[in-house]
Amino acid sequence: MLTLYDFLPSGNGYKVRLLLSQLGIAYRLVELEIFQGATHTPQFLARNPIGRIPTVEFEDGRHLAESGAILWYFAEGTDFMPQDRLERAQTLQWMFFEQYSHEPYIAVVRAWKHVVGGKLTPLQEMELPERTRRGYQALDVMEGHLARHTFFVGERYGLADIALYAYTHVAHEGEFDLTRYPAIRAWMARVAQQPRHIPITERPA
Amino acid sequence: MLTLYDFLPSGNGYKVRLLLSQLGIAYRLVELEIFQGATHTPQFLARNPIGRIPTVEFEDGRHLAESGAILWYFAEGTDFMPQDRLERAQTLQWMFFEQYSHEPYIAVVRAWKHVVGGKLTPLQEMELPERTRRGYQALDVMEGHLARHTFFVGERYGLADIALYAYTHVAHEGEFDLTRYPAIRAWMARVAQQPRHIPITERPA
Repeated sequence: MLTLYDFLPSGNGYKVRLLLSQLGIAYRLVELEIFQGATHTPQFLARNPIGRIPTVEFEDGRHLAESGAILWYFAEGTDFMPQDRLERAQTLQWMFFEQYSHEPYIAVVRAWKHVVGGKLTPLQEMELPERTRRGYQALDVMEGHLARHTFFVGERYGLADIALYAYTHVAHEGEFDLTRYPAIRAWMARVAQQPRHIPITERPA
Repeated sequence: MLTLYDFLPSGNGYKVRLLLSQLGIAYRLVELEIFQGATHTPQFLARNPIGRIPTVEFEDGRHLAESGAILWYFAEGTDFMPQDRLERAQTLQWMFFEQYSHEPYIAVVRAWKHVVGGKLTPLQEMELPERTRRGYQALDVMEGHLARHTFFVGERYGLADIALYAYTHVAHEGEFDLTRYPAIRAWMARVAQQPRHIPITERPA
């Protein structure tokens, strides 16, 4: 059976858990305390030298890391990945946007304020306003796109929506105010209505 | 003809220019002064609401942004993308690693020290040691992998190498010391020996 090394509050991990749920793929969940060094032990670094969750271990002992790469692996050939070449690339465009221009701001501010309990280092305190500003910039880009589209690519639910939903739907835990983003909120409701949707901290059956 | 909106010193842009050179695809280069707001004009934001280069414009007027997505689009079906499903996902693993754990440190420190001329804001001054430390962490991960492999995926030059070469080969411009990374240096020499390789600031013919 597939093994997923993960941390339940992680949006990056949730992307993988949500897709596996929606594809009906069974897996064994190994929960790691990422804020207590569990991904930097010699055993874990042998699985993923980048030292991050989510990481999957296949039955043959091979591994794959980075949420976007794991999503891609499991979605190939399914309805979650567009058949059109440009739409496939647009899916990756939004997935790279999420990892570069959204996650480092929205997810990191949420982690600082909500997951690790709000005690910031002096550097984090100094970075907080700029990270918050850039988080809103990412939300502005999403709102502009969703004001004209039902889903991110091809007017159809898919990987790009999973990637962007994960941290957007918990952005309020980083004190981001989503009341001013009606298109994002309507899209989040559409995402949550998809078959086999699961909440972020739900363990596999 | 294809149009590429770009900025020559950008490693993200260079990834696309290098692949297009190696695929023999002709394009028109439009150079933008990204540090003077050229990617945040209404005209450019209509092309790419994320407001970043590289962005490509196809002949039919459609656009694609994010270097990783552009690389994927052009590499599909070519020797630059593995035919094996897991190797394709491993390619994306390294491309996401580059955008999340490498570029924000190595490329940003290089931009601060080399491209924009070394005058830092107080926040940048405070961030510099941590960004430098994380840049070396990324180099450590690369060195560990390259000590056992000739290229990042499948022992064969491909997209993951292009993505990681772009900012690694100019890391010295951010004052990163590569003398302690013999495997990275040997790999960079192998990358530079590939057919139709071009330097970072070379314009298309």
